[in-house]
Amino acid sequence: MNRHTHHAAHKSRFPLDQCRCHLETGPIVLVGSQWQDTRNLMVMGWHMMLGFTPAHFGCLISPGNHSYHLIRESRECTINVPTVDLVDAVVGVGNSDGDEVDKFAAFGLTPQASQEVSAPAVAQCYANFECRLVDDSQIDRHELFIWEIVAAHVDTSLERPRTLHYRGHGRFMVAGDEIDRSADFRRQNL
Amino acid sequence: MNRHTHHAAHKSRFPLDQCRCHLETGPIVLVGSQWQDTRNLMVMGWHMMLGFTPAHFGCLISPGNHSYHLIRESRECTINVPTVDLVDAVVGVGNSDGDEVDKFAAFGLTPQASQEVSAPAVAQCYANFECRLVDDSQIDRHELFIWEIVAAHVDTSLERPRTLHYRGHGRFMVAGDEIDRSADFRRQNL
Repeated sequence: MNRHTHHAAHKSRFPLDQCRCHLETGPIVLVGSQWQDTRNLMVMGWHMMLGFTPAHFGCLISPGNHSYHLIRESRECTINVPTVDLVDAVVGVGNSDGDEVDKFAAFGLTPQASQEVSAPAVAQCYANFECRLVDDSQIDRHELFIWEIVAAHVDTSLERPRTLHYRGHGRFMVAGDEIDRSADFRRQNL
Repeated sequence: MNRHTHHAAHKSRFPLDQCRCHLETGPIVLVGSQWQDTRNLMVMGWHMMLGFTPAHFGCLISPGNHSYHLIRESRECTINVPTVDLVDAVVGVGNSDGDEVDKFAAFGLTPQASQEVSAPAVAQCYANFECRLVDDSQIDRHELFIWEIVAAHVDTSLERPRTLHYRGHGRFMVAGDEIDRSADFRRQNL
């Protein structure tokens, strides 16, 4: 990891109804999990916001993933948003098996204690969201886990986080320029 | 609209199991709908892929939107992905009401006949996905519509589409650079 990463010290509690600002753009995320003495990390790109208040969030996790069992049993996870400086770790986590290696140790990522859940967060990610399962009814049907984000920690000094967005086939789009059109929005549509 | 937009002539049928390449990055999309003699467009940013084959896709549409009724009755929609040249139209569509104006006409967007559904696509968008509702069980519970993409049309000459990704508060992130790490991926993880 290098000097561009975002250690816990730079992050502060973040309002839950604003989590969408860091997730709605569609970044690839690292999902942290823990069940009993086993922890794991996985890369995940199929997710969406499902509500502001409570801050509901949905994501797809397939039974083929080692994390599936840990997440289903613990009914908790962390959603951690990496920036481009972590691309090596993201590729490493995505291409290894949690039953063979400790992915935190293998890819230089630091597990960081969460406040509301047992699952560890990733210290180097600029944003961490602690999640509790609120609706398990769509897991067997669609592999869809529906979460409530119960705590959020974000390095807000990063105005335009250079997040990674997966295009498939090993290609990532990196978050680019910003266009501010807030002056053209009706207040209720912001 | 300007010379950078992607009219129907440049698009070709696109494999359904590859739709994720254009949706997983999390772009803001325009949702086209039609019910009886009424059509509409809305801007939508809360969505996710839910399957490769069939190509399942979920999105959140609130009853407060004029499109909600059209979409719920017709059980069809189109998902259209705009690029940065269409930002004025996107902001316009997002800040007007479909019961007051024809958003296609008002913002210079051309309705394009779909092949499998009645809902019109947006000619100027580089990618159009025709969707049929396959699971309505989560609409009342989570405002979540679960679709099967039944036809896809993409301008594949656009290798790195400069899509728009909503950060909230009137700010858009524009898709930036690309990192190709396909050589580092295990085949089953691509």
